[in-house]
Amino acid sequence: MNKRIPVLEIFGPTIQGEGMVVGRKTMFVRTAGCDYSCSWCDSAFTWDGSSKEDIQQLECQEILKELKKIGGENFDHVTISGGNPALIASIDELVDLLHQHGIEVALETQGSRWQDWFKKIDDLTISPKPPSSQMKTNWHILDEIVERLKENHISLKVVIFNKSDLMYAEKVHQRYPGIPFFLQVGNDDLEEMESDHLALSLLKKYQWLIDQVVSSNTLNHVRVLPQVHALVWGNKRGV
Amino acid sequence: MNKRIPVLEIFGPTIQGEGMVVGRKTMFVRTAGCDYSCSWCDSAFTWDGSSKEDIQQLECQEILKELKKIGGENFDHVTISGGNPALIASIDELVDLLHQHGIEVALETQGSRWQDWFKKIDDLTISPKPPSSQMKTNWHILDEIVERLKENHISLKVVIFNKSDLMYAEKVHQRYPGIPFFLQVGNDDLEEMESDHLALSLLKKYQWLIDQVVSSNTLNHVRVLPQVHALVWGNKRGV
Ligand code: SF4
Ligand code: SF4
Repeated sequence: MNKRIPVLEIFGPTIQGEGMVVGRKTMFVRTAGCDYSCSWCDSAFTWDGSSKEDIQQLECQEILKELKKIGGENFDHVTISGGNPALIASIDELVDLLHQHGIEVALETQGSRWQDWFKKIDDLTISPKPPSSQMKTNWHILDEIVERLKENHISLKVVIFNKSDLMYAEKVHQRYPGIPFFLQVGNDDLEEMESDHLALSLLKKYQWLIDQVVSSNTLNHVRVLPQVHALVWGNKRGV
Repeated sequence: MNKRIPVLEIFGPTIQGEGMVVGRKTMFVRTAGCDYSCSWCDSAFTWDGSSKEDIQQLECQEILKELKKIGGENFDHVTISGGNPALIASIDELVDLLHQHGIEVALETQGSRWQDWFKKIDDLTISPKPPSSQMKTNWHILDEIVERLKENHISLKVVIFNKSDLMYAEKVHQRYPGIPFFLQVGNDDLEEMESDHLALSLLKKYQWLIDQVVSSNTLNHVRVLPQVHALVWGNKRGV
């Protein structure tokens, strides 16, 4: 019997709104389940039980079929997001299957668990969570993950809501100076459904974050990005 | 006697708003002069004579000194922009000097002229101009430039204002399929000084561009970006 993957959403093509391949045309596969419960999680439906009935246990072949059904010939890149997809061992097979079909794979995880298949991911983002999330980083595990992936196309990303998050980001950047480092504006207006309003408010926060980084001498070799998809589509899901 | 470089502006630190290292914390050095005269050029003051008196003929050491004076210890990356910096042979020395000081160098040029120092640029963007610019691409020169830079960290970027620009972009992407390819929204509201207004109008154009790319099967391995700095600062200069 083939192993199954708990899937909540498959959608696209759209563009990647965050991080190391921001703007990349991609499909999304969103898996269910997370070992964290960040205070500001924008995907809480993946782990808080509210979308339990929507979870489908799919085989890799079924996922590929659904991707092709929705995306046709209009994609060559898939982003696996969550939740925390690093909880799911059988993603290994999905990555292999996508590669066999000439499709690149990106994935984001907070760095709380290792999976051997991390090494196969084309664009891997490790996003440890800052203090505002109320989560605690296990530095021992994170050290090991970063060490094992030194030769891979990876990046670190920290979402910033306030000054203590920024201090945390400095710590992460100093701990792993050789890894491409991204700072991202946090979106705490998850209830705002007026997208113009949200966009302007996010741009103001982005400007604040840029100002902080510009005036720092420890955050030099960094990239600062907004959540591009939130600027365009606001808090809508499935785009 | 040392060779001099015609410089119009030195500013930063700020973030790179476009292309392959979008979001990168950087200083800017803007050179004077261009062999093109794109209809929608947002830096026309570099070549139309309007800022002639502001051009300073600087030696590399003077440029570095000015960068350090403005940026202090808060940067490790410099973007050389124009105009077309590829017109200036003596940029060779500037790149070497910056590298000696541990500073990375990015540069953008339309691909109308070759310089041997292209090979030293850390992040080189070649941005051939689409039909809406009223300029004509010399494919022979572009072929040669791309061929010589195959082993370097380069990308192609095309700014899109309309459907024929998009067809031109498809042509460029098909001609150089192995080169990372960026599509960028054009800003034709250069007179709009109300930055919220401009941001929302650019986001609408960005959404149009995403829609075009999403529904294409020839533009798959691409990245689609807004002009992030125009979203944040509107049409202001020197930020
Ligand atoms: S790690 Fe990600 S998915 Fe999990 S709770 Fe935090 S933000 Fe949400
Ligand atoms: S190539 Fe660049 S600087 Fe030169 S005219 Fe065109 S847009 Fe302006």
